[in-house]
Amino acid sequence: MKGGAVEVGEISKGSIPRNGFKRGLSIVDFILRIVAAISTLGSALGMGTTRETLPFATRFVKFRAVFNDLPTFVFFVISNSIVCGYLVLSLVLSFFHIVKITAVKSRVLQVFLDTLMFGLLTTGASAAAAIVYVAHYGNPNANWFPFCRQYNRFCERISGSLVGSYIAVVLFIILILMSAISISRQ
Amino acid sequence: MKGGAVEVGEISKGSIPRNGFKRGLSIVDFILRIVAAISTLGSALGMGTTRETLPFATRFVKFRAVFNDLPTFVFFVISNSIVCGYLVLSLVLSFFHIVKITAVKSRVLQVFLDTLMFGLLTTGASAAAAIVYVAHYGNPNANWFPFCRQYNRFCERISGSLVGSYIAVVLFIILILMSAISISRQ
Repeated sequence: MKGGAVEVGEISKGSIPRNGFKRGLSIVDFILRIVAAISTLGSALGMGTTRETLPFATRFVKFRAVFNDLPTFVFFVISNSIVCGYLVLSLVLSFFHIVKITAVKSRVLQVFLDTLMFGLLTTGASAAAAIVYVAHYGNPNANWFPFCRQYNRFCERISGSLVGSYIAVVLFIILILMSAISISRQ
Repeated sequence: MKGGAVEVGEISKGSIPRNGFKRGLSIVDFILRIVAAISTLGSALGMGTTRETLPFATRFVKFRAVFNDLPTFVFFVISNSIVCGYLVLSLVLSFFHIVKITAVKSRVLQVFLDTLMFGLLTTGASAAAAIVYVAHYGNPNANWFPFCRQYNRFCERISGSLVGSYIAVVLFIILILMSAISISRQ
């Protein structure tokens, strides 16, 4: 029982600063989720509204590029929208953790869901990045032509859209780490 | 002190099955890491050794496809190799957790590193998948020709190489979840 008594002493001694630290983490978690939600929303909107019509046309062909000409960009918009929706919903859980600091199971659930969404977001972002790369530099071996030479403004927009997504990817890594730290401090 | 006494009672009562559960998780963790390492190694080797020469040639041109004709596939091989190396090294930490079940900080570190490697692996796999998709179906809007019609065996190999990588992605999600559960059971 001696070891037990020491442990009780430690719990009561360290509980107030420890709770403060955990609450601090939960508040940062809440804020980062809002930032990540805005980033993914920006990415989805940025990509989803990208279109460019070149200022010349033949009688039969109008030179126009829309984001949904490439299925990967459609997937990018969908994945960013899903992750944005998840982030907004997860604010409820995050707020719950600010109020109830001792919650553990819900934090484990949050780590799991965050990991899934992190995977989905990374998939969308890197698939789009691979296509953007080909759009910029083409691939002479595969005879894929870099259409960015014509559709300059279109390519700038789609490249810019990736930024928000990558910001959210980094934020997710921080969120998962913070959740793990929170769970470890019981 | 009454609450403290109850807590001590709970710790001593639940410690043996709880330790058994945690040790079980650590052993599964160890095994899954070996499986994931083999999967990523298979993917890296599968992609890295892919080449096809078509059975006809003109006087000046030999029709040959090698995986490093496409930079995304080189990135795929590199990312899978790095993750495979990490998984092998992480076996040390995983073994340490089987022996020392109460370790917490090293588990948090493991969650963080796993998350980073999960991100790297997902990036490589989905970028390669995006290019494989274009190789199979092409993109008429961008005038990208599906070279899989000619290089059939090449495309089969690169598509197959993705499988190992995606198995490892799923295993990483399970590993991170298991680590979070382990940390929560102190």
